[in-house]
Amino acid sequence: MTDAFGDSSDAVRSARPLVHAQRVTFDGPWELELGGTLDEVTVVYETYGELTTARDNAVLVCHALSGDSHVARHDADDDPGWWDIVVGPGKPIDTDRYFVICPNVLGGCRGTTGPSEVNPRSGRPFGRDFPSITIADMVAVQRRLVTELGIETLLAVVGGSMGGLMVLEWARRYPDAARGLVPLGTAARLSSQALAFDVVARNAILHDPDFHAGQYYGQASKPNTGLAIARMIGHITYLSREAMAEKFGADRLSPREVSAEFEKTFSVGSYLGYQGTKFVERFDANSYITLSMAMDLFDLGGSSWQLASVFKPCDARWLVVSFSSDWLFPPEQSRQIVDALAGTNKPVSYCNVESSCGHDALLLPHDVDMYGGLIRGFLANLDGLDDADDGEHAPTGIFRKHRLDYDRMLELIPLSASVLDLGCGEGELLRLLTDRDCARVCGVDADQHAVRTCVGRGLDVIHADLNEGLPEFADRQFDYVVLSRTLQAVRDVERIVDEMLRVGRRCVVTFPNFAYHKLRRMLAEKGRAPQSTGQLPHAWYETPNIRFFSIADFEQFCADKNITVQRRITLDTEAGREVNDEPNRNADLAIFVVSR
Amino acid sequence: MTDAFGDSSDAVRSARPLVHAQRVTFDGPWELELGGTLDEVTVVYETYGELTTARDNAVLVCHALSGDSHVARHDADDDPGWWDIVVGPGKPIDTDRYFVICPNVLGGCRGTTGPSEVNPRSGRPFGRDFPSITIADMVAVQRRLVTELGIETLLAVVGGSMGGLMVLEWARRYPDAARGLVPLGTAARLSSQALAFDVVARNAILHDPDFHAGQYYGQASKPNTGLAIARMIGHITYLSREAMAEKFGADRLSPREVSAEFEKTFSVGSYLGYQGTKFVERFDANSYITLSMAMDLFDLGGSSWQLASVFKPCDARWLVVSFSSDWLFPPEQSRQIVDALAGTNKPVSYCNVESSCGHDALLLPHDVDMYGGLIRGFLANLDGLDDADDGEHAPTGIFRKHRLDYDRMLELIPLSASVLDLGCGEGELLRLLTDRDCARVCGVDADQHAVRTCVGRGLDVIHADLNEGLPEFADRQFDYVVLSRTLQAVRDVERIVDEMLRVGRRCVVTFPNFAYHKLRRMLAEKGRAPQSTGQLPHAWYETPNIRFFSIADFEQFCADKNITVQRRITLDTEAGREVNDEPNRNADLAIFVVSR
Repeated sequence: MTDAFGDSSDAVRSARPLVHAQRVTFDGPWELELGGTLDEVTVVYETYGELTTARDNAVLVCHALSGDSHVARHDADDDPGWWDIVVGPGKPIDTDRYFVICPNVLGGCRGTTGPSEVNPRSGRPFGRDFPSITIADMVAVQRRLVTELGIETLLAVVGGSMGGLMVLEWARRYPDAARGLVPLGTAARLSSQALAFDVVARNAILHDPDFHAGQYYGQASKPNTGLAIARMIGHITYLSREAMAEKFGADRLSPREVSAEFEKTFSVGSYLGYQGTKFVERFDANSYITLSMAMDLFDLGGSSWQLASVFKPCDARWLVVSFSSDWLFPPEQSRQIVDALAGTNKPVSYCNVESSCGHDALLLPHDVDMYGGLIRGFLANLDGLDDADDGEHAPTGIFRKHRLDYDRMLELIPLSASVLDLGCGEGELLRLLTDRDCARVCGVDADQHAVRTCVGRGLDVIHADLNEGLPEFADRQFDYVVLSRTLQAVRDVERIVDEMLRVGRRCVVTFPNFAYHKLRRMLAEKGRAPQSTGQLPHAWYETPNIRFFSIADFEQFCADKNITVQRRITLDTEAGREVNDEPNRNADLAIFVVSR
Repeated sequence: MTDAFGDSSDAVRSARPLVHAQRVTFDGPWELELGGTLDEVTVVYETYGELTTARDNAVLVCHALSGDSHVARHDADDDPGWWDIVVGPGKPIDTDRYFVICPNVLGGCRGTTGPSEVNPRSGRPFGRDFPSITIADMVAVQRRLVTELGIETLLAVVGGSMGGLMVLEWARRYPDAARGLVPLGTAARLSSQALAFDVVARNAILHDPDFHAGQYYGQASKPNTGLAIARMIGHITYLSREAMAEKFGADRLSPREVSAEFEKTFSVGSYLGYQGTKFVERFDANSYITLSMAMDLFDLGGSSWQLASVFKPCDARWLVVSFSSDWLFPPEQSRQIVDALAGTNKPVSYCNVESSCGHDALLLPHDVDMYGGLIRGFLANLDGLDDADDGEHAPTGIFRKHRLDYDRMLELIPLSASVLDLGCGEGELLRLLTDRDCARVCGVDADQHAVRTCVGRGLDVIHADLNEGLPEFADRQFDYVVLSRTLQAVRDVERIVDEMLRVGRRCVVTFPNFAYHKLRRMLAEKGRAPQSTGQLPHAWYETPNIRFFSIADFEQFCADKNITVQRRITLDTEAGREVNDEPNRNADLAIFVVSR
């Protein structure tokens, strides 16, 4: 569903009836986290696909602030859902395979008990009498619904934005209830900036003279101006500056013809006015206040240490996704969650999807290849049917080849060791280690496509830049840290070596030997920058290798930095053999095992 | 002046009387750009320091949206000014040296004609009858005031944010009126995101039921809620996310005790409520609408090409300053102005000050060492008294030494040539070229401290990263482009060489020769990464040099890329002589003159 502004899905949905919605009422008293009570709770929800007889394929989808139970169309004639690009037959959350449940949240205004519903005690809508609720209260209602549907363990809980807060709350409150958790574009608590926007939005609603202390339901006028202003502020925060420039830069003084009672001088103004005006037709001001306050009060902690303690009892697998241009829930907030999980050996993968779409990316088709692919691969591996990725994202040729250095590295690493592979690429070494039943295996790579491939192969991988260190990992967390053919491409050599030695009891470092006889000769005899068909195939001006050093240089470095060399293996990979005679001249690749 | 929240200056100023303000009234009719007319215009302004008898030391300071004429204290007993850190005796805009003029803008509410002043036609305040005005109208009034003060040519016009828009408008409308122009934290037009925030702010004011169609002056209530909400939105956009986290992250649930009628659940909420409540005591809602609309309508063009045409008649020297964390007027918008000027050979320096303070940086002391230092050095050189920098920021020792390569480069470059020096550092070569009266000399460097030093030395320098190309310069703009001892530290060699050859008719490239005999021997005989006391003094793991190549490699590169080598000079800098015999073995530094 696309409107005059080219938006899709959530932004412009109408308030049409939810013809496929189901409804269940749970008797109370329902005790709420902040002390209030509800006499009963009604939940409106929709389901898609079939529950298996083993009841093991249920995926709970949690919606964002302005979403509802209609996550996807049920058939071709149905109204569009807010996440049709992700949920449906053959889609990343494949309704041919999974039983998808999407309930409207507690406090919402699309059927589930909320401020606009009738308060059984007074016989009129709750209004501001609706008790203060938290994300935990919303999740408690979801849990009750899931139990009611006969499901003991969910395959996964998935949600973005406010829905992502719910995913985190599931982990905290029901650590055994799901096998997989997928928070997207979210945070362990809102940033002060995000809080600030919410505060202003609520002030606009609460000070609207038509708010009537929350009992505007029977009145001639509603706090439409305040709610529209709240929505306009929200819309600005959902878009990146870049996306806004693209959308409105060319015709900034050409407002669209819209029937909104707001300023229309500028193109972006007519857009905001339109969004605000549409929103008040389908959303309730009290719900807005209730839900945004629940978001703002959500706070699992401001440090990774606090979060690690929160998530300690949870053994689910995690896929955390952020979007590079999201400034409402910026990537560093997702990284904090990831750091907490990765640093305590929880199975987690993370990808910061490169996107120009801001927070809205998670509802838009623009980047769905990446984040949808991640979700698809993650669910397939939870499911035990890891057939998701070996077709489309097959590993490149180099990994199919027998690799002498991998053989030797595998011999160096004990079968039961825990291993971190830095610069893991598409996960070939990780997979070889996994096949050997290593205690724990995790990778780090800076390329999002490599990360998606790893996730599709059922591997845990963190999307990160090694030049920024390894803040996500604890001291001596791994038995072995591997840095394979990567040190020569790293800018801050000392930092990454320090970090490896902090995180690993032992470290395996491999690198091309710049003093290999063929390379020496190129410089000494021809006066040319060393280059070879083997380990240094690139020309001087375009090689990814920016550090040139020999086996002797690395040994001197270790001596200078008090690094202990436990083992050294030197190879001539062109000849396919180990080198024992004058390795600094005869080997083109070295494998070092080092420790502090 | 610091309040409970640790803010300074503008944010919390009171509406106290401006005891040092002067006032002048100009008879009309005063024709406005958008068609309106004012019968007369009164301007309130303050001055500091003494005008010289030559009337050549006047600096006009243009204030931001919520500022006024009181830019600084007049004496120790005076109220604080909004820019005391920049304007005053001994300060960057030194009132012992300059005659500083700061007028309240047309449309404002601190004495100059604006919506809250009495409309002589009706005998009551203008309110919404105040005509629509533009930045050009504000500047026309400033110009009239300056003329009235007997000043034909200003030494400089300085301003940030909305004040920066005025600086740009001075350049457009009065291209000969100032010798120097200093726009800070501003843009040739607002981003769509910045526009969007303004639209929402105006909607909040216009829809406040106490707005009374703008004639609230005699009423019991004013549109204080709408204006406070506008101010809250503004405040969020003035701070960086990082600054907000620092200010409110630790005690997010501990609101300060403030007498504001707004939500106080969160620390950041009490801050915003306080700022909003304080603001309505001193600012007028109609002025807010008038000024913010003037800002939003300001549009010198969306491309550097358009801006180049706008600034073509202006021959002033420019200092453009942005702040790295400013997301309301982000650095790329300043860069667009700089690109327009630099690409058309206008004398311009640019610095993107590294700051965590967001847009507010330009009012806060946090980064005033950097941006104040830039302003000080820039003004001193306009003034002809370029004594500003040779003390504190004296060039480092290396430049004091006789440098063989500089001597040879100066011989290669004709006396009248225009020259661009890439990676210019503190400007030693630029200064040598300037002393020779080269037609035009300009530098580029990535280090802000080096940029400040260059500005203090009266040199034009652009703060930019060479790895991002040279978008600010036109094809064949310079006779010579110099890249001295920098190519080996550049990641994208092909790109920067392509860019040099695009921008310069001829290019002078110097680089250390990696095949110098001492370096060859280190690798060939000792098997160690080449290092020398001369051109390659750093260890392999910490050298800034990431590209290793020889004279022969560079010659092959030129042949492969169809680059013509015009001249080659090879030096043994250790021996202090030119090398003619086997230079690829005997020279440690090469100078190439190349062209396409």
